[in-house]
Amino acid sequence: MKIGYIQSAPVFGEKQQNFGQIRSLTEGVKADLLVLPELFATGYSFTSKEEAEALSETTEGETARFLKELSVKTSATIVGGFIERENDRIYNALLIVSEGKVIDTYRKIHLFNKEKLWFSPGDKQLKVYDINGVKVGAMICFDWIFPEVCRTLALQGMQVLAHPSNLVMPYCQKAMVTRCLENRIFAVTANRIGTEHRGEDHFTFTGASQITATDGTILSSAPTDQPAIAIIEIDEKQADNKWINYYNNVIEDRRTEFYF
Amino acid sequence: MKIGYIQSAPVFGEKQQNFGQIRSLTEGVKADLLVLPELFATGYSFTSKEEAEALSETTEGETARFLKELSVKTSATIVGGFIERENDRIYNALLIVSEGKVIDTYRKIHLFNKEKLWFSPGDKQLKVYDINGVKVGAMICFDWIFPEVCRTLALQGMQVLAHPSNLVMPYCQKAMVTRCLENRIFAVTANRIGTEHRGEDHFTFTGASQITATDGTILSSAPTDQPAIAIIEIDEKQADNKWINYYNNVIEDRRTEFYF
Repeated sequence: MKIGYIQSAPVFGEKQQNFGQIRSLTEGVKADLLVLPELFATGYSFTSKEEAEALSETTEGETARFLKELSVKTSATIVGGFIERENDRIYNALLIVSEGKVIDTYRKIHLFNKEKLWFSPGDKQLKVYDINGVKVGAMICFDWIFPEVCRTLALQGMQVLAHPSNLVMPYCQKAMVTRCLENRIFAVTANRIGTEHRGEDHFTFTGASQITATDGTILSSAPTDQPAIAIIEIDEKQADNKWINYYNNVIEDRRTEFYF
Repeated sequence: MKIGYIQSAPVFGEKQQNFGQIRSLTEGVKADLLVLPELFATGYSFTSKEEAEALSETTEGETARFLKELSVKTSATIVGGFIERENDRIYNALLIVSEGKVIDTYRKIHLFNKEKLWFSPGDKQLKVYDINGVKVGAMICFDWIFPEVCRTLALQGMQVLAHPSNLVMPYCQKAMVTRCLENRIFAVTANRIGTEHRGEDHFTFTGASQITATDGTILSSAPTDQPAIAIIEIDEKQADNKWINYYNNVIEDRRTEFYF
């Protein structure tokens, strides 16, 4: 199957412009799974909860509509970030969209930094989706630092992890090598680039979106400062093989009776 | 406190010669914690269970005696590997020795490759020891690939991980950066060098012993092909601070209700 990331440079609050960037980057592109950054349509650096609320949507909103259009145009399952509104709560969430339909949302369970001021923590289980025979899981950005997230998804049979991100620290890309190795999964980390200087915050996003293989090999690494798209052909069934030699299986060898 | 590794080149089956290597490397050395490789006294590549049994010892054996002597000479707590025998079982284990006394042993819970043919899997809990006010935990080599091991130790307050190793794969040293970051701990990975060609097995051990800080910084990295010793001064109390910014604590932020 063909999996890829789209690395864009969102402009704060300018959804149509941000959709346009993705449209240009995906012109003529066909794939099976495409991952977009966290909050790719809205930008990241809110200065108040109200500001984030004003950019929030339901799964019927314009970002969902755009991703449905993109899934049809590219024939790919699309995973991309948005601000999800439900009742009086908003979440740092992502949409999983396939063949013009919303399959589900995931709401970031580990909020980073001031996200805790704007968003409610995720309240949905970590799930793996069978999409056209491929087992796809998803997490958002800072979820990476908790090994339990990838492990929980791998234990549900995840073959490919979709990982929309807005990374500002330098650690994640290397850590994804470990995450893939310890779980024998593929991962697509889609990061954004650019800077946001809003209120007292100044963020520089680190780009370097990455596709990582089950043995930790980095199959694709984007530049740190330019929009980019990469599509890599993988055999997702390699992720079903948890044996790393004749004697060791990274899942079956777990000694859960000794773990807290 | 001063923590360090001793990277040696064990000769298979030659315990006195291997003790001698460590004695030379530690001449005049004073420290608080010194970590030796896995199976530093025996070598690694057994060709039968009987061969491993013949090199096994209790906590009253010559390897324990040597480490007690070393702990007095260096004033350091010593953590180093040995083959532990109890009743009719043998284990790939390590000794924790301080001030001339054996504190405990740990028996590797995740056996690598043919170790499964010679050794019984570890049957003791992962524990953290308060040694002169420092919280020390230990694991052996391949235990690294299971994130649950460091996590279980970190949840018990571990500040410094002692990690005797006989690494033959190229992944662990980088993964220890992730292990330290995700748990905010210090780690001392003591690897061996050299090759062993015994029976049908040919192993090259990768050296590059490493001391890693709570933020993933590599404080010391040994050569891949020479004996080495390094001692680094750290403030172990940095490991008690699990906050990575004003809002995020890598332990308290865990959402255990969502983890398998």
